Amino acid sequence: MKGWGLLLLSLHVISCLVSGVASGHTSSYVRTEFPSTDIPLESEWFAIPKGYNAPQQVHITQGDYDGKAVIVSWVTPEEPGPSEVFYGKKEKQYDQKSEGTTTNYTFYDYKSGYIHHCLVDGLEYNTKYYYKIGSGDSAREFWFETPPAIDPDASYTFGIIGDLGQTFNSLSTLQHYEKTGGQTVLFVGDLSYADRYKHDDGIRWDSWGRLVERSTAYQPWIWNAGNHEIEYRPDLGETSTFKPYLHRYMTPYLASKSSSPMWYAVRRASAHIIVLSSYSPFVKYTPQWWWLKNEFKRVDREKTPWLIVLMHSPMYNSNEAHYMEGESMRAAFEKWFVKYKVDLVFAGHVHAYERSYRISNVNYNITSGNRYPVPDKSAPVYITVGDGGNQEGLASR
Amino acid sequence: MKGWGLLLLSLHVISCLVSGVASGHTSSYVRTEFPSTDIPLESEWFAIPKGYNAPQQVHITQGDYDGKAVIVSWVTPEEPGPSEVFYGKKEKQYDQKSEGTTTNYTFYDYKSGYIHHCLVDGLEYNTKYYYKIGSGDSAREFWFETPPAIDPDASYTFGIIGDLGQTFNSLSTLQHYEKTGGQTVLFVGDLSYADRYKHDDGIRWDSWGRLVERSTAYQPWIWNAGNHEIEYRPDLGETSTFKPYLHRYMTPYLASKSSSPMWYAVRRASAHIIVLSSYSPFVKYTPQWWWLKNEFKRVDREKTPWLIVLMHSPMYNSNEAHYMEGESMRAAFEKWFVKYKVDLVFAGHVHAYERSYRISNVNYNITSGNRYPVPDKSAPVYITVGDGGNQEGLASR
Repeated sequence: MKGWGLLLLSLHVISCLVSGVASGHTSSYVRTEFPSTDIPLESEWFAIPKGYNAPQQVHITQGDYDGKAVIVSWVTPEEPGPSEVFYGKKEKQYDQKSEGTTTNYTFYDYKSGYIHHCLVDGLEYNTKYYYKIGSGDSAREFWFETPPAIDPDASYTFGIIGDLGQTFNSLSTLQHYEKTGGQTVLFVGDLSYADRYKHDDGIRWDSWGRLVERSTAYQPWIWNAGNHEIEYRPDLGETSTFKPYLHRYMTPYLASKSSSPMWYAVRRASAHIIVLSSYSPFVKYTPQWWWLKNEFKRVDREKTPWLIVLMHSPMYNSNEAHYMEGESMRAAFEKWFVKYKVDLVFAGHVHAYERSYRISNVNYNITSGNRYPVPDKSAPVYITVGDGGNQEGLASR
Repeated sequence: MKGWGLLLLSLHVISCLVSGVASGHTSSYVRTEFPSTDIPLESEWFAIPKGYNAPQQVHITQGDYDGKAVIVSWVTPEEPGPSEVFYGKKEKQYDQKSEGTTTNYTFYDYKSGYIHHCLVDGLEYNTKYYYKIGSGDSAREFWFETPPAIDPDASYTFGIIGDLGQTFNSLSTLQHYEKTGGQTVLFVGDLSYADRYKHDDGIRWDSWGRLVERSTAYQPWIWNAGNHEIEYRPDLGETSTFKPYLHRYMTPYLASKSSSPMWYAVRRASAHIIVLSSYSPFVKYTPQWWWLKNEFKRVDREKTPWLIVLMHSPMYNSNEAHYMEGESMRAAFEKWFVKYKVDLVFAGHVHAYERSYRISNVNYNITSGNRYPVPDKSAPVYITVGDGGNQEGLASR
């Protein structure tokens, strides 16, 4: 049984996009079949940048609703240092500056470094920006490219990655992705798998941040949390949920009128992308339910013909692993997916690649005779891509 | 169409209880059919007790796992004052004292009084206790009775009330309940309906607390939150959920190893009572899911032959109102209800009385041919009793 470590979605100029013909393609890259082991901590792939208190684990994400801002995040290990991003359109000429905030946290016996989040906004579309963080000998320089303006004809290429982890397979997935021309990653949850270590060792959050920096510092990753981000450990006195994730990974949730960083939406080029949280409340009357109800109304298919939903736990999954786990969210949200003609629903969680026909099960209820998902032209295509490389290996039954 | 405003459950000594013959009876009390209006604020039913800063809105709930403690809660309007409960086994002779804590909150333009919560523990079973709160001219006196020890043969009578509100029908439900001999109320959510007022006016939380004090000060009410407790109002800057409820109503969640006051369990007489939160995360991997998985293992049918689950949103409901809203939780938890042979599941939410046969739908899945709930001797009886008297009236289709 084979698994695809990542998926590439290129949005092209096709006039029938509103009715939702999926125009992605699956990368030819296939992960090796066997569970792989995590890269050792002392590996060069986790190398700590040189210089006192040098910024590390640099990552950017979209910082607003429409793609004219990024949030730049990084960690300084020794002391907070300045939360400043210097940036500009010419290499080495940083004529603008943004200031951000610093946070940190403890998790049982782990104490994080100083985590910086800095909004860089007012950017121009279709532009390459150079940026610098840190100072003196420890300064580090990167760049990113802004997307085209929101436009139904804008072409763009997203990579979809989930369940990544920090094995040699994870690295291989990353290296392969870099060759594809993907411009932004839609991440469907389960980042570092630090929770597989004793006491959910936060050191493995740090190493993961350094491993993926090769991509995350240069293009936005649109974040979504998976079950491995929950980190609910009452036995360690850690009873809040998503604590490391929420400290480390910011999302532009306020820009889409969400009240939680766990669910939000961004628009980018010709796509409207909705990020749902599988492990937050989502039934009727809850904040996520209200938010999604309103967000669907804000979708304008004239401007963003592509309507894409990300979640961690798939609603449709024929694999034995995690079978029916997404049923609760399906019961809550599938009707809206059909009503608003969502094009694509990407999920992770199940460590395999699966792709559905356009199906729906909205007629199922506990008293009617309907029970099978049926072909439905208004329904999304459901795609599971949960085999980015983590230690747990592939699910194949 | 008729609705029963409350349900009475008497646990008797029946040797076949483990296999779960429901031995409750429905009270003969039937609510009037039409939506009723809220009692006016100036009504005597909401009277403020005399004396400066006199304690009001007094309510007690079980304070531990097994019924040897109560949490006494009340509000002082003018200043915090002492958080002390004086108590003893003889009237007017308060030879013991417990100290508690004080909290308060704001909700938009409403500022609450000082809310006191005081644990009174180390009580004896089957004993009447007298207690006093407040001081001087403003002191107020009450009493409560502790339950029998945990024992499979212990008889006990619970009242089940949901969706109460503060109409004249609510009052009628309360008055009727007082005549039934019910010893403890299992409350299935939706307390004050303060959220139906402009800005979720907290004054209606206060009036509700005074209205129900006639019962809540004298016997434990086992609390569960409904959708009217969510009070998510981002338009008012109130983006947390359950804020007034969580400040006002305490639950003994730590005693059942829960990490949230929203879900917990208590044992009382011959019953093991599990309180689930319909509007908190509950799918696999979430805290409530882990907690319930473990709590079911702690159930000892030799000691507590009755296994009762409370939730707000019913899993089975044939009424048009709120049809299928409980499907998400059913998908997550029904298997365990059948596996552990839950006797009774009480819910509110739907403003009508419904009672199921022992049915289950655990064989339903999206690929099998099974889709109807089927008779299942291991399944619970599902009872919806969501017509305590609130302003919304009865659901009858």
